[in-house]
Parts: sequence; C-alpha cells; structure tokens
Amino acid sequence: MKKSEITTLKEITKNSTLVYEGPVFKIYSDEVILPDGNTSKRDVVSHLGGVCIAARKSDNTFLMVRQYRYALQREFREFVAGKREPNDTPLERAKAELEEETGYIAHHWQYMGHFIPTCGYDNENIELFYADDLEFVAQHLDDTEFLQVFSMPLEEIIKEIEDGNILDGKTIVLAYKLDRLQKELQKTDSAVRG
Amino acid sequence: MKKSEITTLKEITKNSTLVYEGPVFKIYSDEVILPDGNTSKRDVVSHLGGVCIAARKSDNTFLMVRQYRYALQREFREFVAGKREPNDTPLERAKAELEEETGYIAHHWQYMGHFIPTCGYDNENIELFYADDLEFVAQHLDDTEFLQVFSMPLEEIIKEIEDGNILDGKTIVLAYKLDRLQKELQKTDSAVRG
Repeated sequence: MKKSEITTLKEITKNSTLVYEGPVFKIYSDEVILPDGNTSKRDVVSHLGGVCIAARKSDNTFLMVRQYRYALQREFREFVAGKREPNDTPLERAKAELEEETGYIAHHWQYMGHFIPTCGYDNENIELFYADDLEFVAQHLDDTEFLQVFSMPLEEIIKEIEDGNILDGKTIVLAYKLDRLQKELQKTDSAVRG
Repeated sequence: MKKSEITTLKEITKNSTLVYEGPVFKIYSDEVILPDGNTSKRDVVSHLGGVCIAARKSDNTFLMVRQYRYALQREFREFVAGKREPNDTPLERAKAELEEETGYIAHHWQYMGHFIPTCGYDNENIELFYADDLEFVAQHLDDTEFLQVFSMPLEEIIKEIEDGNILDGKTIVLAYKLDRLQKELQKTDSAVRG
C-alpha cells in the first residue's frame, strides 16, 4: 500500500509485554500493526499521571518548591506537584500534595486544564490547578522527599522561564496559562469599567 | 539528622543498573544516598532529547503534523518534532526533521530556548526553534512514520490549547513562547511608531 492511499493513522496492538515495573512507572514493549499493514515496535512508559498546582498567597506570590531532580542531576524550581494514586481524583491529589509539600490548604480551587508532557512514548497526563484563599496548617513530607518551599510573583516566574532559568514543563505550561488568563481578566475589567 | 538541619538537596548515586534498553529510551534503576544519609531508589528514563519547530509559512500559518501517538492511543496535533541522534546538534536535527516530515526547508532559523517535559523521572530535554522563509523541496518520511501535514494560524493554535484540544507539551510551550514574543514585538513596534 502506498502512503498516499492510507486513510487512518491508527496503530493496532499485536502483542504487549511488560518489561519493567518500578515504583513510579512501568515499561511495556509492544508490537503494533502500522497503517500500511507492516509491524513495528513501540515502547511505552506507563505512568499514573500527575497534578500541578499554582497556589497564590495573599501577597500575590505563588508557592513554589526547589527540589533535586535526580534524572537531571540538578535542582529545579517548580510549582507544587505530585503523582496520582490509583483511586484518587485529580483534585483530591492536588489538595493532598499542596498540604503535604507546603503545609497550606486552599479554600478556593480552579481547574486549569491538562496536558501530555511527552506524548511520543509516555502516557503521563498532568492535571493543572489554580488555588487561592490559603491557610497554613502544617507541612508533612514523605520520608524520602526533600524540598524547600518559597514563593514568587507570576511576572517573575514568566521572566525566569523566558531567561531559561525555570525549565520544568508543567510549571511553564501552567504559568503561561495563568498569565493569559490574568490578561484576559484585566481586559474584561477595563471593558466593564469603560 | 532532622530535615530542618539539611543544607543540600543533592542525591548521590550509590549504584546504577541498566534494566531496559529500547530504540527510544533506556531505563536505569539507581540506588541513591539522600540528603539525610538514608538510601532510596530512583528509576530514570534516559532519552537523547528532542527538537520542536514552529515553522511559519508565508500565509502566516504554522506547519503542524497530525500523528497517532500509540502511548496515548489517539491522534495528536503537534508542531514538527523529532528525537536527537547521538552526534547531531539541535539545529541540524531541527532542519532534518522539518524537511523529512513536511518537505520544507527554512532559510531563517531562531532559537526559542529549551525545557524539560517531565523532570521527575525522565532526563529528556527539548530544544525549541522558530523557522520561516520556507521553501518546499520534498517530504521523505521514515518507513514506520505515518503523519499528515497541515497548517494553522498561531491564534487558532492558542485557542485550541485553551479549549483543551491541543494537549502536546512541547507544542503548548512553544506556542505560548511565540505568542508572548509576537506581543512583545507588537509593543515595540507601536512604541517605535509612537
């Protein structure tokens, strides 16, 4: 079959093999049938997905965490985030992560959409949230979790992204979404005020 | 050691084991020494990294590809992208991917920074480019690569992101970066024009 005659892009699973199972992800190595009928191999990182939270304090700064990311062998500054668990909802997980990592609970939550960080070989999906009306309770990190909490204004976060100093995908996507939303609200505000 | 007494976040490799090697990524399962001296396990997806290109046609639309992403079992609309090879530079790879996937070469290239899609367990780094002054030569896809090329104006791409219809991380990050850059240029333009 010529490529120009192909009408579907779908790839069908011929067989699927679990080749590695760890605490954070599983690896499947699958054989698939391509749109032209040939077979090929597709390796997949299977992950439960995550949540990421931009929590705004009353001084108009956003809570962030500094964490050592072993995969990159360096520290990252990120919005609060965490991995989903089998039976939670994204909002439940977001509330739990915010409280565990920063010690804050939020009385107002807003859903900000989701995205797929690296769709070529990894099924991870990240759900994004905005939170405000915060109240400090108490931080309670996992035993193997080390991080430092701080906060920054959104304009500074955006500047650090554009200077290449904040590199984390979920933080970048959520910061840009908030920036656009804020500008839309400002436009509406000034339209209402005339 | 109490967590409050810890001054570094660094995790040191105690031992590292290659547990899976496939065509797109390798998996390492490492034992690390935590900041408090205890040990823990860190699994890492090791990937050569990728490039992503927003190529603007003379009609002011951007080249995109529709691809079936097996890991997610659905089609994605994305900017042109590809995986790095061991000895290329990001720009060489970007030029090669644009030509292979869309058939276009670009006479003007601009670097747009880089980001880490999912830093918690994956070392993949994506280098971003803007390209214009395009010339059509000829598409030449890999045998196992099936995709459809189309193009969209940036405003429509941003709208589709905000409506949750474009979900690919690299496409979202690059589209927002371009959108902000365009607005900065417009501001400068009108400042210059007075």
